Amino acid sequence: MSADALFEAHLTKEDFAGYEDADKFKEYIPKLEAYRKRLADAVPAEITATLPKAVEELQKEQFNAVDYLYKEKLLTPQEFEYTDAPVKTLLAKIASGEWTAVDTYKAFAKRALLAHAFTNCAMEFMLDDGLQKAEELDAYYKEHGKTVGPLHGLPVSLKEHINYKGHITHASFVSNIDNIAEESSVSVQLLGKLGAIFYVRTNQPQTLMHLDSQNNYTGLTKCPYNLLLSSGGSSSGEGAICAYGGSVVGIGSDIGGSIRAPAAYSGCHGLRPTTKRISLLGGVSALGGQESVPAVAGPMARSIDAIELWMKHYINDGKPWDYDPWANRIPWREVEVPKAEDLTIAVIRDDGLVRVSPPIRRGLDQVVEKLKAAGVKILEFTPPKTDVAYQTINKMYNCDGNYMQGSYLKKSGEPLAKLTKWNLNYGDGAKMYNVAENRQLNMTRDNLRNEYNDYFVANNVDFVLSPAYNNVAPHSEEVYNWSYTALWNILDFPTMSFQTGLKQDPELDVWTEEDKNYTYRSDLEQLENENYKPDEFKGAPIALQLTGRRYFDEEVVAASKLIVDDILKVDLLKN
Amino acid sequence: MSADALFEAHLTKEDFAGYEDADKFKEYIPKLEAYRKRLADAVPAEITATLPKAVEELQKEQFNAVDYLYKEKLLTPQEFEYTDAPVKTLLAKIASGEWTAVDTYKAFAKRALLAHAFTNCAMEFMLDDGLQKAEELDAYYKEHGKTVGPLHGLPVSLKEHINYKGHITHASFVSNIDNIAEESSVSVQLLGKLGAIFYVRTNQPQTLMHLDSQNNYTGLTKCPYNLLLSSGGSSSGEGAICAYGGSVVGIGSDIGGSIRAPAAYSGCHGLRPTTKRISLLGGVSALGGQESVPAVAGPMARSIDAIELWMKHYINDGKPWDYDPWANRIPWREVEVPKAEDLTIAVIRDDGLVRVSPPIRRGLDQVVEKLKAAGVKILEFTPPKTDVAYQTINKMYNCDGNYMQGSYLKKSGEPLAKLTKWNLNYGDGAKMYNVAENRQLNMTRDNLRNEYNDYFVANNVDFVLSPAYNNVAPHSEEVYNWSYTALWNILDFPTMSFQTGLKQDPELDVWTEEDKNYTYRSDLEQLENENYKPDEFKGAPIALQLTGRRYFDEEVVAASKLIVDDILKVDLLKN
Repeated sequence: MSADALFEAHLTKEDFAGYEDADKFKEYIPKLEAYRKRLADAVPAEITATLPKAVEELQKEQFNAVDYLYKEKLLTPQEFEYTDAPVKTLLAKIASGEWTAVDTYKAFAKRALLAHAFTNCAMEFMLDDGLQKAEELDAYYKEHGKTVGPLHGLPVSLKEHINYKGHITHASFVSNIDNIAEESSVSVQLLGKLGAIFYVRTNQPQTLMHLDSQNNYTGLTKCPYNLLLSSGGSSSGEGAICAYGGSVVGIGSDIGGSIRAPAAYSGCHGLRPTTKRISLLGGVSALGGQESVPAVAGPMARSIDAIELWMKHYINDGKPWDYDPWANRIPWREVEVPKAEDLTIAVIRDDGLVRVSPPIRRGLDQVVEKLKAAGVKILEFTPPKTDVAYQTINKMYNCDGNYMQGSYLKKSGEPLAKLTKWNLNYGDGAKMYNVAENRQLNMTRDNLRNEYNDYFVANNVDFVLSPAYNNVAPHSEEVYNWSYTALWNILDFPTMSFQTGLKQDPELDVWTEEDKNYTYRSDLEQLENENYKPDEFKGAPIALQLTGRRYFDEEVVAASKLIVDDILKVDLLKN
Repeated sequence: MSADALFEAHLTKEDFAGYEDADKFKEYIPKLEAYRKRLADAVPAEITATLPKAVEELQKEQFNAVDYLYKEKLLTPQEFEYTDAPVKTLLAKIASGEWTAVDTYKAFAKRALLAHAFTNCAMEFMLDDGLQKAEELDAYYKEHGKTVGPLHGLPVSLKEHINYKGHITHASFVSNIDNIAEESSVSVQLLGKLGAIFYVRTNQPQTLMHLDSQNNYTGLTKCPYNLLLSSGGSSSGEGAICAYGGSVVGIGSDIGGSIRAPAAYSGCHGLRPTTKRISLLGGVSALGGQESVPAVAGPMARSIDAIELWMKHYINDGKPWDYDPWANRIPWREVEVPKAEDLTIAVIRDDGLVRVSPPIRRGLDQVVEKLKAAGVKILEFTPPKTDVAYQTINKMYNCDGNYMQGSYLKKSGEPLAKLTKWNLNYGDGAKMYNVAENRQLNMTRDNLRNEYNDYFVANNVDFVLSPAYNNVAPHSEEVYNWSYTALWNILDFPTMSFQTGLKQDPELDVWTEEDKNYTYRSDLEQLENENYKPDEFKGAPIALQLTGRRYFDEEVVAASKLIVDDILKVDLLKN
């Protein structure tokens, strides 16, 4: 069957009747154009001028924008020093008065604008807000001789669907274009008090339910390491801006892979914490009241250190439970980086649903060899009931019969993106479940959690290592399978998507003869595997996932430091 | 309107068609009789002989069984010493070898049998199991010179619906009479490892959804301080056995008041912790997969010390998350008993739904005066949107259209208890909600949680003091209103139901002339208020609730020690 036929075969459960309405949508077009114009106007001509060619041309060439940034010295040496500083150095230099918040901020703002010029990662720049906050921080520091808080001067980027006071918050639903947030979200308020600077809100797909970025506001975001490819999603812009270095930490959200996929594809690290550690109060989504598989907010960054520091201060100093009783009152524990020889890691090489592509296979092999060489005990792990897990979570997403997504979409009649049609057909599509059926899904989920938890405990497994996706960054609008990330959402096990330092190599990463004789286990697998053609994924980052038991977030982060920093010696701040 | 008419007026949403079926039920009768016979046979003749009259006669006389226990010296001085020892003394004496686990256990077993003879609190005695475990503990101690764990020798009673390996677990559904648990629940396993001794499983109502005890297995449980009255529910047997001193700690569960009501009515203390601190994995209920208002397990005891010690060891030494990934990995924090002058407590005197009866009013007045005298800052608090909260939680209970409760009940065709009919008519009765509607309920709940949390934070309120019910222990099968307890379930705020040391006094606790001119705000209020006739509630314990913010369990327990032990000087271990 052709890829198109396979795709069409999936679209059988939701008929999209009443969704698209060109007449209704027409009314929104001027507002959308104004929105895009504000974004375009925010990017100065000297930034746009750094592009060697039109972006469309760069995309065809699989252009590496990160490489170009360094080679062509698009920043001054001082700007590189600010924006490539380890997070603790950056905060310490501002806290000691050696660097000002304003100078540091300006370097990040410039790098963020560059990131956007190449990858289309931003939805909205608030550069004046950022500058004003930086000036206030410097003034406070000058007057009091101390910082306002532990994140004094930290440049943080925000996924757009997080409320930002006085600004449109739309979650990529066109019908929300007049929705001005009355208050900033809890996370924005809390991080602001700790000293963070906000200056950019980033791209995400229509419905927030693609591991990709298409929407009717600003369109696709691209992988900075290969502009032909997707930056992932749904925290699409965060993936690109963080990987490019336009912010120190980005805040994404994840209900099926939406932090981990963009981190993996774009070239940074991303933590999907256990639910309820980071507040999600104050934001737009179509999943209000849905608690079978809760969304989670979490940090993305170029270093595990930045992720750890952000989690620690967010929780211990921010005390989200003072603003949001949904947030668990669990302090962030200081956990030492473990010794390799004390660790047992179980490896998933195949989840039984979709075979991984050659670069991911190579990444897994090399990382496992290095872990073994360092003394880590490795177990091979065939994860049980992944089909049940994936079917169940897909039903959970849509079991309101697409009521809320449908309401938001139908209101504007906006055109449906290709992957919106894909996600509206998850599970039983537009079938409205009743409460008894929903409770059955929850019981299935709880049994899966028990079974996986028992596996960890019974085998003294500390972590599971797995692919973050069956491929490296795919082509835009061709991300069909969520099974590798979504498994950890239904289990609610904290998971770090981390860079291995390896990149796709068209020579090395080819399908073998044995691969070519493979019999696909499903249409989905065929669709995904056929999308991998070695020549089209040049230099795409190779990332994996590390997963711990529920609430073992601190251990996952500490072990990620061991693996990324010490064993793999990946340093994304050096280029 | 008469009470009967008011009751009937409520029963309009569920028609009970297909529930009761005398023919089907007939098949279960021999098994039920055998079940009751095993229970009756477990009680030795010398225990039954201690009753001065038939229980039916004692009930008419509003007999005080606790008073009688001490006055008539139903236990030996040594047995009183064991069973009235403070928990730390008891554990220390066993741990030092001064007391054996067997001697201690035998005293509790005898007191538990007495409790049952007077109040009908037990469903099942496992006295041989208890003795065997006590002997094993002594043997271990003798061999190793140390205890097996921090709860070595602690007699613990269990609500019946908690799985106990090899024993019937039915949750008072007759259709479950052949359901033999293959494994003990997580809590039983975990506490067993820490050294707890189990020997009795206790009564609960049909469906678990009465704040009372009627069922087709063993019938009603009575308040030990006044045998005419209800022991409360749904942890009905735990209320009576703990208040009578037949165990040191009892494990109950609470989804609308089911720990706090029986503790309040029966004469002990009971903590409803925040959800997910105590595992509920391994048990029978009709609410599997229901997570809009999750059930919670928690301890009941005659001292706050016992509750605190149990929580601390259960969580910190038991590590429930190793068995059950649903359980939050939040260690129990050591929190100092606060100083009265550092506390701000907001008082709810009326929840806007059902006026409290005279003894509760007196209890509130006296406790507030003592708190003020001790230096506590008191705020008057009119809780917002209690009508919305109560309507919403009632819908959450039944929004599966009574599917699961109905399935369990219809299978045996068992007769429906009066209050089963009452609870099946909660919310929208047998209306099956769809998922979108359920998500709306969840959003309403989350908004309420935010509003109440904001009240605490904005006003620097540490705790809320409120009635545990609009009355003292009511007559059996006349518990209609859950609003005072259920408020804290929908908010998921940890709440201690505690004894004030005061008892109902027919002379003091009368309706005033002003009361008699009161205009009822609802049928429910009329029904509840008209049930309070001063002469029929002689000596009923007067209890209140103390509530903290979500996850502030440790603070609630520490403040309860201040209030109960230091300010009110209530000592239920002395009589």
